[in-house]
Amino acid sequence: MKSTQFRLDELARHVNGQVIGHSDLSISALASLAAADAQSISFVSHEKHLADAQQSHAAALIVTEQLRLRLPQQQNFIVVENPYLAFALLSHVFEHKVLARGIEATAQIAESAIIAEDAYIGHYVVIGEHCVIGSNTIIQAHSTISDGTEIGRDCFIAHHVAFDCAVKVGDRVRIHSNTVIGGEGFGFAPYQAKWHRIAQLGSVRIGHDVRIGSNCSIDRGALDDTILENGVIIDNLVQIAHNVVIGENTAIAAKCGIAGSTKIGKNCILAGGVGVVGHIEIADNVQLTGMSMITKNILQAGTYSSGTSFLETGQWKRAAIRFKQLADVPLTKIVKQLDHMQAQIESLETILKLRK
Amino acid sequence: MKSTQFRLDELARHVNGQVIGHSDLSISALASLAAADAQSISFVSHEKHLADAQQSHAAALIVTEQLRLRLPQQQNFIVVENPYLAFALLSHVFEHKVLARGIEATAQIAESAIIAEDAYIGHYVVIGEHCVIGSNTIIQAHSTISDGTEIGRDCFIAHHVAFDCAVKVGDRVRIHSNTVIGGEGFGFAPYQAKWHRIAQLGSVRIGHDVRIGSNCSIDRGALDDTILENGVIIDNLVQIAHNVVIGENTAIAAKCGIAGSTKIGKNCILAGGVGVVGHIEIADNVQLTGMSMITKNILQAGTYSSGTSFLETGQWKRAAIRFKQLADVPLTKIVKQLDHMQAQIESLETILKLRK
Amino acid sequence: MKSTQFRLDELARHVNGQVIGHSDLSISALASLAAADAQSISFVSHEKHLADAQQSHAAALIVTEQLRLRLPQQQNFIVVENPYLAFALLSHVFEHKVLARGIEATAQIAESAIIAEDAYIGHYVVIGEHCVIGSNTIIQAHSTISDGTEIGRDCFIAHHVAFDCAVKVGDRVRIHSNTVIGGEGFGFAPYQAKWHRIAQLGSVRIGHDVRIGSNCSIDRGALDDTILENGVIIDNLVQIAHNVVIGENTAIAAKCGIAGSTKIGKNCILAGGVGVVGHIEIADNVQLTGMSMITKNILQAGTYSSGTSFLETGQWKRAAIRFKQLADVPLTKIVKQLDHMQAQIESLETILKLRK
Repeated sequence: MKSTQFRLDELARHVNGQVIGHSDLSISALASLAAADAQSISFVSHEKHLADAQQSHAAALIVTEQLRLRLPQQQNFIVVENPYLAFALLSHVFEHKVLARGIEATAQIAESAIIAEDAYIGHYVVIGEHCVIGSNTIIQAHSTISDGTEIGRDCFIAHHVAFDCAVKVGDRVRIHSNTVIGGEGFGFAPYQAKWHRIAQLGSVRIGHDVRIGSNCSIDRGALDDTILENGVIIDNLVQIAHNVVIGENTAIAAKCGIAGSTKIGKNCILAGGVGVVGHIEIADNVQLTGMSMITKNILQAGTYSSGTSFLETGQWKRAAIRFKQLADVPLTKIVKQLDHMQAQIESLETILKLRK
Repeated sequence: MKSTQFRLDELARHVNGQVIGHSDLSISALASLAAADAQSISFVSHEKHLADAQQSHAAALIVTEQLRLRLPQQQNFIVVENPYLAFALLSHVFEHKVLARGIEATAQIAESAIIAEDAYIGHYVVIGEHCVIGSNTIIQAHSTISDGTEIGRDCFIAHHVAFDCAVKVGDRVRIHSNTVIGGEGFGFAPYQAKWHRIAQLGSVRIGHDVRIGSNCSIDRGALDDTILENGVIIDNLVQIAHNVVIGENTAIAAKCGIAGSTKIGKNCILAGGVGVVGHIEIADNVQLTGMSMITKNILQAGTYSSGTSFLETGQWKRAAIRFKQLADVPLTKIVKQLDHMQAQIESLETILKLRK
Repeated sequence: MKSTQFRLDELARHVNGQVIGHSDLSISALASLAAADAQSISFVSHEKHLADAQQSHAAALIVTEQLRLRLPQQQNFIVVENPYLAFALLSHVFEHKVLARGIEATAQIAESAIIAEDAYIGHYVVIGEHCVIGSNTIIQAHSTISDGTEIGRDCFIAHHVAFDCAVKVGDRVRIHSNTVIGGEGFGFAPYQAKWHRIAQLGSVRIGHDVRIGSNCSIDRGALDDTILENGVIIDNLVQIAHNVVIGENTAIAAKCGIAGSTKIGKNCILAGGVGVVGHIEIADNVQLTGMSMITKNILQAGTYSSGTSFLETGQWKRAAIRFKQLADVPLTKIVKQLDHMQAQIESLETILKLRK
């Protein structure tokens, strides 16, 4: 596939940066320091990367003014305040975007659906009755969109995505392949030793600028809706159960699971593999480290963890046996007993000294 | 989408309940106490919801007789013994069901496949040779069904479901979107530092009234079959490895993983994120709390857990370091030593007292 | 479906084994010891299965010479050095393979794509521009293959697989249903309290003889590629984040997650549910037990673990409370204090003895 050429000053304008060196340098790729060649631009976001930067074959580097002064052998720079942000912005310039527009002949669109003229609907997409697809939205091959779903403008829906009920999706939302939105929540009433299914009647509401990775399951609510507020970003293989609410700009890394009716605040960060039990509340600005198991409300901003550090397995087995023993070892009592015994010993010592 | 109207006494008959108030009240929705409006019916399953019930705008409430007496301001009720079960039953009345029947023109059905006349086969469904699809079964768009698969009556198969071998499925089974049934088990023989694939020849047998969520992987057996017995319910993103057997009415919440050849009993409940090692046995009526790691047989009914509680990260780090230290701290010996020292001290005290 | 018949000596040749008994015995299935009938061959890989072997109705058994001598009641054998490997090899003989070749009429193939004549492209497969599909490669129904993807020869791509960027795949690679290869990595630059998406420009490179299960997410790199080296085997529901590198012949069981830029060595084994943090390195020949949480480099071959053993929940709660208390219990100091107090007591005892 052909790649486009950019002048260094064009790219600098894009990130509000200042060119040092040859403004008319021709750049055709954004690359890591190690992989960059004489047509590539790369970036240095931290002084720990200075050694790699000195050895990089990149034609130009995005740096701070301070970092530039420490790279005397390099010649071409875009100087910015935040190189990592500049990299993020430039990544969009070099991205291969889906340019096709219109509806592929093989797509099945219900008559009552309203599709923006400049949307793209891929091969074999199935769109149900009364759906609305906004301007400049891309829906890739094989996605299935149930009756009544409304998707905003400038969205990107990848392959094999299933909207399984009448979902409402905001603008600039990105949903990756094989994710299921609005699947049936796991609701059953136990009665006479059997599970009686509760038909799920709620939906899913997704705000603006939400991002959902691949192979996620975002269930529809039982009665009310499951809600992802504006700016929420979610990685792959994440489970969001029925009636969960995720607050604005919260980030959820891969393999997390949030059980039913739990409410997570704004600007939280859940690292990979975190599990959160149902029917609890997590405050704003909470960070949960990887694989934490959260079983109670967290009402105070801060960072929380669970689990144990990893150990060589032989050592771990000894520690794990002691963990079991802890059930019957009264630790705090031991500490108190120790203090008490220490006092007794000292008292004995004093008595003996006096009687010398 | 239009909604249907029901009279309050119609709904009451549906749940074997008694109307208190206006029998001819017109109801068009089942809603939560908070979201209910003057056309909605809601339910109160526990006295902790009484405050919400008092403030609800619901036209009518499903309650027990005891709860009704504590809601003097509300006027219309359906009185039942088990309001939560009544809610479960009514949810089906208000559900938007797939009403279409027949085979979409874009479906690819092998000649030898037998499809019941009143089944529904959605767009782009692919059905292989010798498959059988039972009466009133719905197969939504894009599902793929391999040769020899037999699906019973009144089943619901959502979008993008893959049956990857000749699977046998009972009646009233529900399988949600993007789930894979009968994928290849993870079987390899190590030999001369390489992994030699074992072709998987078993299948998957799914009983009646089984429910499987979205994005699950239920692998086919190596030689014998993987088995889900009648009434098993499984949430999203669950892994069931080859030759696992899950007993009747066992419930498995999201993100659990059961490794190969493990046998889980009847009426068990696995909370979210539980991992069960391969080749073990779990008795009937076992409950495993969230994210438990089960590494050995459980032969006794009861509730089991593993992991640690979550803590503020600073505190957790101190505890986690101590967990490591436990490997070299002989806890039970310490307890004995303490007792022994206590005895020694007391003996010293006695001696001193005697010599006073 | 009809099954093929094999003579016992044919099967023996296939595994370099020696027939004991009737060479012309007709075998139509490979089965477990318990399920085998008079048309089946089964295998005994360990003396712990001898009792089952004695009771098996199998027509013939694959055994070592030593095991054969302990099965006097059985009459027909294939004797080999490694019965489990022989079983692995024979499993391929009895597998129902996809025999169809060519391109289904409903597949959408871009004009610039190059498809080997003896490949099979299933119904509704979508193949983009400049893709290459090698000889004897099977692509099952509904898979979607983005522009520029190259897949080698003798590969098997199951249903609903999404290649979401220009992925490079070696020979003899197997990828199971509903897996996503080359989905967008989870890369965001935080700036002014919002997440700014980093378009992912790298790809995924998959070596020869790689196996990936169902419902996996293998993300494309941010700038450089995500890499699975030759012989890597991956089970279901696994997350491989952007820029991860997995070394040759490493095995990753179901539900593992590897965070971004982590490099895992050769011949490692990750048991189910392991989580590995980003930007670390794991040496060759490392084994991680189930559900381990790996947060730091592992530079030494060996076996590592984390977590706690499971306990009956009441006992676990007591142990878990003590784990919390450990944060404030100076274990190593206690051990020292105990030793010190013991010395003090003994000194007191000596003094008293002297003064007797």
